[in-house]
Amino acid sequence: MLFHDLFRHEPNQRRIAAGDFLFRAGDPGDALYVLLEGHARVLVGERAVDEVEAGAILGEMSLVERLPHSASVLAVSDCTFAAIDEKRFHILIAQTPHFATEVMRIMAHRLRATNQLLQQE
Amino acid sequence: MLFHDLFRHEPNQRRIAAGDFLFRAGDPGDALYVLLEGHARVLVGERAVDEVEAGAILGEMSLVERLPHSASVLAVSDCTFAAIDEKRFHILIAQTPHFATEVMRIMAHRLRATNQLLQQE
Repeated sequence: MLFHDLFRHEPNQRRIAAGDFLFRAGDPGDALYVLLEGHARVLVGERAVDEVEAGAILGEMSLVERLPHSASVLAVSDCTFAAIDEKRFHILIAQTPHFATEVMRIMAHRLRATNQLLQQE
Repeated sequence: MLFHDLFRHEPNQRRIAAGDFLFRAGDPGDALYVLLEGHARVLVGERAVDEVEAGAILGEMSLVERLPHSASVLAVSDCTFAAIDEKRFHILIAQTPHFATEVMRIMAHRLRATNQLLQQE
């Protein structure tokens, strides 16, 4: 089973049309999103820092820090996201340790990519 | 109880003298470290990206991605670190959901700081 198949039946889903934003930097962060279908782009300021496909996790930073989003997410094609609020997030971590390590793996990958961009400056 | 008090009695500890490195970018990443005492600096290339005190978690990226370290950690003062290997890491996540969210919170904080450096370029 693919990681995002775990979330295919999450009751709380959001559809975002191509060209629209799931969220923008500065928006309050009250949920983590799992991209179920489509292709999205992560932007820091005007700079594209990641291109993501089904299975991507987005918004986890704001959820764990309880701070506004520091990046924006643009739907490049029509996208469907599962929305995981804080309560559900903590249930998933407690019940599914694999979920926790997968979130960490994705955050680590993103941090590594950002560090590489910094070194290219 | 402070977060790092959870690790004060970890059997596997490493002492690093001021001016020495805990690890350098490119070294294999086989453990996560919790700074128990001292003051350390995280370097990406030659650039200091973070200054950390007791309670800091380091090396988590390499552990979850099973990749070499992408940053270096320099002991600014004499430091003591608890070393958490992969097996112990997964036990901690399964037994202590708070540990998982704390690791995520620290990774999010670091990613946010790195994003801010990128935007200042």
